[in-house]
Amino acid sequence: MTELIFIGLGLNDEKGLTLKALEETKTANTVFMETYTNHMPNFNIEHFETLCGKKLQILTRKDLEEENGKKLLDAAKKGKTVFLVPGDPFIATTHITLRIDAKKQKIPTRIIHGTSIISTIISLSGLHNYKFGKTVTIPFADNFSETPYNVIAQNQKFGLHTLCLLDLRQPENKYLSIKEAIEQLLKIEEKKHQTIITSTTPAIGIARAGNDNPVLKAGFVKDILTFDFGAPPFSLIIPGELHFMEIEALLAFAQAPLEFRSLINEP
Amino acid sequence: MTELIFIGLGLNDEKGLTLKALEETKTANTVFMETYTNHMPNFNIEHFETLCGKKLQILTRKDLEEENGKKLLDAAKKGKTVFLVPGDPFIATTHITLRIDAKKQKIPTRIIHGTSIISTIISLSGLHNYKFGKTVTIPFADNFSETPYNVIAQNQKFGLHTLCLLDLRQPENKYLSIKEAIEQLLKIEEKKHQTIITSTTPAIGIARAGNDNPVLKAGFVKDILTFDFGAPPFSLIIPGELHFMEIEALLAFAQAPLEFRSLINEP
Repeated sequence: MTELIFIGLGLNDEKGLTLKALEETKTANTVFMETYTNHMPNFNIEHFETLCGKKLQILTRKDLEEENGKKLLDAAKKGKTVFLVPGDPFIATTHITLRIDAKKQKIPTRIIHGTSIISTIISLSGLHNYKFGKTVTIPFADNFSETPYNVIAQNQKFGLHTLCLLDLRQPENKYLSIKEAIEQLLKIEEKKHQTIITSTTPAIGIARAGNDNPVLKAGFVKDILTFDFGAPPFSLIIPGELHFMEIEALLAFAQAPLEFRSLINEP
Repeated sequence: MTELIFIGLGLNDEKGLTLKALEETKTANTVFMETYTNHMPNFNIEHFETLCGKKLQILTRKDLEEENGKKLLDAAKKGKTVFLVPGDPFIATTHITLRIDAKKQKIPTRIIHGTSIISTIISLSGLHNYKFGKTVTIPFADNFSETPYNVIAQNQKFGLHTLCLLDLRQPENKYLSIKEAIEQLLKIEEKKHQTIITSTTPAIGIARAGNDNPVLKAGFVKDILTFDFGAPPFSLIIPGELHFMEIEALLAFAQAPLEFRSLINEP
């Protein structure tokens, strides 16, 4: 049967897949995977191939972007084809064009969703989902942009939290660190003077969300800058107004200093 | 070993669990589950018990809220205890207090994240994640609130999309319909006259996100009001400014009318 199934790999390793995802992969004719939109350092390809009884074919950015996913679409025309994508397949916008191209070529598509970094970080932080504003990605310094600062400023105006995803450079597997991300924001602060990010702004750094040993550290920017988060991947939350219960969660699970209790009275 | 593991069940049925979640459940001493924060009509408890080889104990809202999760915390003190929660365990804020209570009672906790409705709806819609503003829940008419309208208005001011979760009433398993949700918004529009939600506002209704047969319908409010979405659960997106690629995705996968192409020139 002609079919292309986009499957989310979830986070961390091959055990992040759902039972449904494994079942569909087991019955596929051809199985492709990409690892360039996100890096999964703990994903054991051999173990996964044993689990699903299929050989994995890795697709590069070139395969998908320059050659418009020809290998994948050609396989899907011949039989049930699975395309494994880190996290959830369409939270990054990269593969939407591919799904539209499949439709144009009359290939039916389905999605098996996976655990996404977006909901995982919010869940792990103990902050309230409905208090997050727009999400932003902080790029490497050579792609320096004022957008992250402006998004944080806009969210703060409404008391909303900002989830900052930190950029990843592939194929080098180079991760932007929490320190580098904050330094970029401070640099824009120095220029704009809007008191959005200063050394005393509360922030929450998160390393290895979705892994067995995530590390969270809530504190003031000056503390987060010097904190050792260990191995990547990293994310950062700049909170807006904090609810009493959010502060208690940060004290219990994110090493927040007791001074965080006084943030509840801030405007 | 004294331990409480919060595990996300993911969406739809018992196959929505990750391999990691199943592995941890298999090796638990005691397994609890709650189904009141979200309804999983296709979850087959007997099949799940066979899969994990454990007997499931269902916890009610009373067990968790009035009795502060005593059953669960007492079990966790005696040995490895798993608590299964629909979606991701902490995207609803309900169980954060329980995790804090566990910590106060010196019970170590861990989280195995699951596929969340939040990322799933965004992924399914083909809209761009970083263009969503604050999320809101639309309550039943007897809990009528102007908040959803105001959140949509605030997001629209910045061109941002609004994800509207529609309320669920338990234990009756009563779902707010997309029609009822829109009617509430139109009622507030009638009073406020801010031209936020009118019969010609674009909207996207989504039924059964995360199931095998989700239905998406993009159109103008007047069309969405009369569309038959079939069985629940339901969600609604009120888009802000639409990018060219977002419109193409809605045309390909959400039955959007061709008139949507002209939205790209709107402010």
